Parts: sequence; C-alpha cells; structure tokens
Amino acid sequence: MKLKHLVIATAALSVSLGALAQMKVEDAIKVRQAGYRYMGWNMGKIDANLKGEFKADEVKAAANVIAAIANSGMGALYPAGSDKGVGFHETAVKPEFFQNMPKVGEHARAFNKEANELAKVAGGGDKDAVKAQFGKVGGTCKACHDDFRKKD
Amino acid sequence: MKLKHLVIATAALSVSLGALAQMKVEDAIKVRQAGYRYMGWNMGKIDANLKGEFKADEVKAAANVIAAIANSGMGALYPAGSDKGVGFHETAVKPEFFQNMPKVGEHARAFNKEANELAKVAGGGDKDAVKAQFGKVGGTCKACHDDFRKKD
Repeated sequence: MKLKHLVIATAALSVSLGALAQMKVEDAIKVRQAGYRYMGWNMGKIDANLKGEFKADEVKAAANVIAAIANSGMGALYPAGSDKGVGFHETAVKPEFFQNMPKVGEHARAFNKEANELAKVAGGGDKDAVKAQFGKVGGTCKACHDDFRKKD
Repeated sequence: MKLKHLVIATAALSVSLGALAQMKVEDAIKVRQAGYRYMGWNMGKIDANLKGEFKADEVKAAANVIAAIANSGMGALYPAGSDKGVGFHETAVKPEFFQNMPKVGEHARAFNKEANELAKVAGGGDKDAVKAQFGKVGGTCKACHDDFRKKD
C-alpha cells in the first residue's frame, strides 16, 4: 500500500469511528426536545406554585431538575446537520443558531447561571425570592427563544 | 333550583375544575417519555465514561440529572387513563402498572434511593465507586421495566 493510500484509509477510518461515537442527528434532536419538554413541565410546576399554594418541596425538586438539565452539556445535542430534522417532532431551531455560536454560548451561560441560582434560592423556601429568581430564569429562556427558536 | 339539581351542578363544576387542573393524558405521556429519554441519555454518558476515559465532571452532571428527575414526582405523570395512549409515541406501560400501585411504589422508592446515592458517589469522583453504584441504579430500572414495561 502506498503512503498516500494509507493516509486516505486512515482518514476514512477516523471519520467512520467519529461517526460511530456521535449520536445520530435524529436522536440528538429527540434528546434535546426531551430535555426542554421536561424542563418545561418543571417550569410550569413552579409557576403554578407561585400562583397558588406554595409547596416548597415541590418547587425545590422542580428547580433542581431545571438546574441539573441546564448543567448537563446540552451543547452536545446540537451536532452539525441538526439545524433541520425530525426528532419527536420537527426541530424548531433556527439555522442562525449554528452560525452564531458566541451568541449561543452567551445565552447558555446566562441560563445556567440563573438556573443554578434558582435551585439555590428554592432550597431556601422563600416564595418571594423564588418568584424574583424564576422571572430571571424565564428571561434567559425567552432571550434565546427570541434569537434562535422559530415561532409556533 | 332544587337542592338535588344544585348538588349535581356543583359536582359537575368540581369535576370540570379537576379536569382543568390535571394534564391531558397525551401531555402526561409526553412528559414522562421525555423524562425517561433524558435520563437514558445521561445513563449512556455514565456508561461511556466507565468504559472509556472517565471525565468526573461529566459523570457528576449526568448523575445529578438522573437524581433530579427521579426526585421530581413522576407519579403525577401516570394519571388514570394513561395506561394506553400516544405521547411522543405509543406508551410502553403495561396496564398492570395501574393495578399494582404498592409494587410501583416499591420500585420507585428503590430507584430514588439508588439514584440519589449515585449523585452522592459521583460527587466523590471515584470511578470504581461510581461503577458499583451505577450498576445498582441500572438494576432498579430493569426491575421496574421487567414488571411494568412492554418489551420492544
């Protein structure tokens, strides 16, 4: 085998192994949709607690879910090629997301910061403090959705 | 209005308000499928870390997701009538789940206990300890699936 062929064969193997290690685009979209859906349910529970009877344990558990998912490395769920595709449903991400990674990173860091702070505040059990911090988390969700999520 | 009619009207209103407060069956199935899917991704990450390079921070974050979801009151996602139905896909729950709540509770408590212990152990960063505890969590998943989840 000539060196040139060996190099090409090695490169092909490397691409193939890389593809194996990476999730299928459809699966990546499914998992990120799952993460957002599960966070959404927990955001809804906190909202219901703020509008009605405040059950501190339920709020704390819900805030822990949101923070844990925020900290779980969702960036890996946006592989190249996942700007379009169907997971559990058609992805709502805008193609601009993949063209503006520094801005995506800004949104992600803001969300993580406020979600972790919410988990901390919820641990304290004070309704007014949770309400204020919940608003900040919601603001970071909205900011990213406004930039990078297609309207329904 | 006669008393009898008032009682019936009040009962109807109460049922109607109860229905409003409760999630739609389809949504409850979607959210529980989302929760399991997101846990599954995080179980997969821990498994990959145990079989390859052990990145302690990634394992800790993944274990925190599993514990937070385990603690999030998934029981509310199994309302009456959700033994059948389509969320993101057809539910895989067996009807027996709804007929054997004490056993469901046993499985749920075992899973929560081991998932919380995994989050604690993962915080320590010791690969062998994580491996042992990860096996225990997996065992509680399998035990419930064997009893209450339809085979693929």
